[in-house]
Amino acid sequence: MASNPQPKSSFHMSPEEFRQHGHEVVDWIADYFNRIESYPVLSQVKPGTIRASLPEEAPTKPESFEAILADVEKLIVPGITHWQSPNFFGYFPCNASGPAILGDLLSSGFGLQGMLWATSPACTELETHVLDWLVNAMGLPQKFHSSSTGGGVIQDTASSANFCAVLAARERATNLESNGKGVREKLVAYTSTQAHSSIEKAIKMAGIGNENLRLIEVGDAFAMRSEALAAAIAKDKDAGLVPFLVCGTMGTTSSNAMDPLRQIGAICREHDLWFHVDAAMSGTAALCPEFRQLQGGLEYADSYCFDPHKWMFTNFDCDCFYVADRKLLIQTLSVLPEYLKNKATESGAVIDYRDWHVQLGRRFRALKLWFVLRYYGVEGLQFHVREHVRLAQQFAEWIRDDERFELVVPPPLNLVCFRLKGGDELNQQLMDALNRSGDLFLTQTRLSERLTLRMSIGQTNTEERHVERAWKRIQEEASRLLN
Amino acid sequence: MASNPQPKSSFHMSPEEFRQHGHEVVDWIADYFNRIESYPVLSQVKPGTIRASLPEEAPTKPESFEAILADVEKLIVPGITHWQSPNFFGYFPCNASGPAILGDLLSSGFGLQGMLWATSPACTELETHVLDWLVNAMGLPQKFHSSSTGGGVIQDTASSANFCAVLAARERATNLESNGKGVREKLVAYTSTQAHSSIEKAIKMAGIGNENLRLIEVGDAFAMRSEALAAAIAKDKDAGLVPFLVCGTMGTTSSNAMDPLRQIGAICREHDLWFHVDAAMSGTAALCPEFRQLQGGLEYADSYCFDPHKWMFTNFDCDCFYVADRKLLIQTLSVLPEYLKNKATESGAVIDYRDWHVQLGRRFRALKLWFVLRYYGVEGLQFHVREHVRLAQQFAEWIRDDERFELVVPPPLNLVCFRLKGGDELNQQLMDALNRSGDLFLTQTRLSERLTLRMSIGQTNTEERHVERAWKRIQEEASRLLN
Repeated sequence: MASNPQPKSSFHMSPEEFRQHGHEVVDWIADYFNRIESYPVLSQVKPGTIRASLPEEAPTKPESFEAILADVEKLIVPGITHWQSPNFFGYFPCNASGPAILGDLLSSGFGLQGMLWATSPACTELETHVLDWLVNAMGLPQKFHSSSTGGGVIQDTASSANFCAVLAARERATNLESNGKGVREKLVAYTSTQAHSSIEKAIKMAGIGNENLRLIEVGDAFAMRSEALAAAIAKDKDAGLVPFLVCGTMGTTSSNAMDPLRQIGAICREHDLWFHVDAAMSGTAALCPEFRQLQGGLEYADSYCFDPHKWMFTNFDCDCFYVADRKLLIQTLSVLPEYLKNKATESGAVIDYRDWHVQLGRRFRALKLWFVLRYYGVEGLQFHVREHVRLAQQFAEWIRDDERFELVVPPPLNLVCFRLKGGDELNQQLMDALNRSGDLFLTQTRLSERLTLRMSIGQTNTEERHVERAWKRIQEEASRLLN
Repeated sequence: MASNPQPKSSFHMSPEEFRQHGHEVVDWIADYFNRIESYPVLSQVKPGTIRASLPEEAPTKPESFEAILADVEKLIVPGITHWQSPNFFGYFPCNASGPAILGDLLSSGFGLQGMLWATSPACTELETHVLDWLVNAMGLPQKFHSSSTGGGVIQDTASSANFCAVLAARERATNLESNGKGVREKLVAYTSTQAHSSIEKAIKMAGIGNENLRLIEVGDAFAMRSEALAAAIAKDKDAGLVPFLVCGTMGTTSSNAMDPLRQIGAICREHDLWFHVDAAMSGTAALCPEFRQLQGGLEYADSYCFDPHKWMFTNFDCDCFYVADRKLLIQTLSVLPEYLKNKATESGAVIDYRDWHVQLGRRFRALKLWFVLRYYGVEGLQFHVREHVRLAQQFAEWIRDDERFELVVPPPLNLVCFRLKGGDELNQQLMDALNRSGDLFLTQTRLSERLTLRMSIGQTNTEERHVERAWKRIQEEASRLLN
């Protein structure tokens, strides 16, 4: 055999170089956290600015790590909207934390691909285990625990989890035939007008068609009206259609409305419909016993999801998806080619998570969730959830106490929907002025056909002083606009 | 207003603690890289071992970071199959590198969510830019460049990209009606018997039904027979069905077979069918001009994907998905609720990548790809691709020269399919013995109904000495079995 002509680490970053540059990146991030409040929260760049700063073609020759890291500061940071800023109150939180980031770094370091139990048993078993931990820590129904008929899996996002729920429901409703024959039956799904857009997207992707998705009207607090749901189902059945799925929401994106899960669940049971519950942001609240009444009725659910990457200090992406009948989910999503066969799979004694979602490949995401649960402990997480809810309730009080403003709906948890009294244009101006200032970042929604501002409190380092300052800035801009 | 009652960083990891623990984790990973060859490549644990070592319930109280990191070593490492070992020859590579891991770490540190341009312009613009770089660096058709009608997006995996291709093709074939009305037409898709299982999964998920997926027979080198494709399409048309999509493969998972893309493309054009090409692993070869003939015919493709997380030193997950008509993809996957509206989106001047895939949320994955392209330069990447191909060709020569073995098919790139002459059981024993030894890891497939071993060469640090040693170990075990 020829001797090795290849230089030992040509072009590669050696372990010792990785150690050095790794420390540099860690330091960079620590410094970034320290100065994060000095940046405008919402990036102020114009479309095309970032691209214009980059070379037209990929570099032919290697560049130094120092040059790359310097460009992060110079070229990338101005184009970042600082989601981890304590002054970020837009959308829903996407809160990260040190232990999560470091767990994720280890996952990158292992560089393993956990599609099968056999391709890294620890990846699968830690995931099952940590998701079981959460069943108990959050008071979820025991049927979602892997010791029962169900179990949990980490998906990337609630969008994907919602889609898998739709697929499993579709299969169940068609006696496992829609995978083979396509969607032939006149299937109909139901959710509220306030449900997340990913439900509609899932119904489209699954080949059911959004003409067959009924958007059920909501009541005063923007929660689904269960009588309207029952009526819609009855009407569809009379018309010869096949109702198969209801998606309820625990905390809508728009206003954090809580659907009446118990009533919806009873209707699903009566008609033998799949009941999926999307609790993407608000699910985390169930870490605290005092908030668990919001998930009352979950015992009726066939599937459930929430995102630790939203409010549980676990960096994106990490959605927990639970099913009551794992066998059905696997039947829905399993395809087993020869090149993935192995003894462990054939023994039936293990979980192969590739059969639990859209993707085949998967990274070791359970590590970061494990790190978070251990570093904070359940008590640490409860502390911050309670604090965020307290701050939101306090903010709502300030809104109530200022007669220039109105509270659109009482906040059940950590999202406050409010308006400056006056028209949509006034509120748009208020939001734009605040966001342009860079002092804080808010987003809007539309409730009862009126533009509504959303104060979403849940970033990792948001403390009372940030909420106080936000309110002060909101009042200032309001005064300026009203004068 | 009340003063702040919250301790400044209760339960949180402060930036200074992050700095300290971050250095520890970086050091841990550097040490792991240094000692990676000392582990058995395939984890040797039995089902349930990892779970049995973990506490039954989530911890109530916080634990120290030191305790958590110690448990990674003690509890997790034994359950890891070491994908980054230079002695990992299973499946396809999933090669990572220092710059990729550090780019990904920065992405975790920013903790941004790039669903819209506005939620971090740099996340979107860097992604578009780097994917444009690759169009030129790999000699892909210009229609995939964002300056044309198309463009690229980073998806998690080729499974997801293949699914999006199926959805866009479905919409085009139904005049944009299947999203609304569901799948009503008698759609038929085509791929080869050797195509990846994700194609079948995509057809199922899209509500088309895998009875309507024709698996076209392959020729001697396991490539799709284009005459058989043409005949199948004609037959389906005669039967009143609606052919809509052909998925070709550049490098099948089983044996790295190369479908005749040019012939397939011409047939697709003739019948106005969507042509999708899956080049998950082998696409990376096109960085080297001498391998570009393998992608000849790509100019006919409507969509294309390959995975930098397989062979381009970019840690999982990172798939590049290109379409020739971005408007159609967006029409297929867009849902725009009020709470995501913003001025940039309304201006039409920006890309919102949430409309390019299944998920809504997305992490800043372009950073790691940018880091890799700059740190290696195109020349550095070419060097390693060529070296992996050279090692595979050399291994194939050794197989040819040992009369106890047979080469099942000439290897086009870096995957060698071979057998010990004798039955399936003998080959299974050979593979099991090798994998049990921990010295290397191989996986199998089935070709012409016979068990076939796969030597897949593409891990970051695989050098000639590793391939030599693997061959020596294969010969040793073969001698033992044959005596």
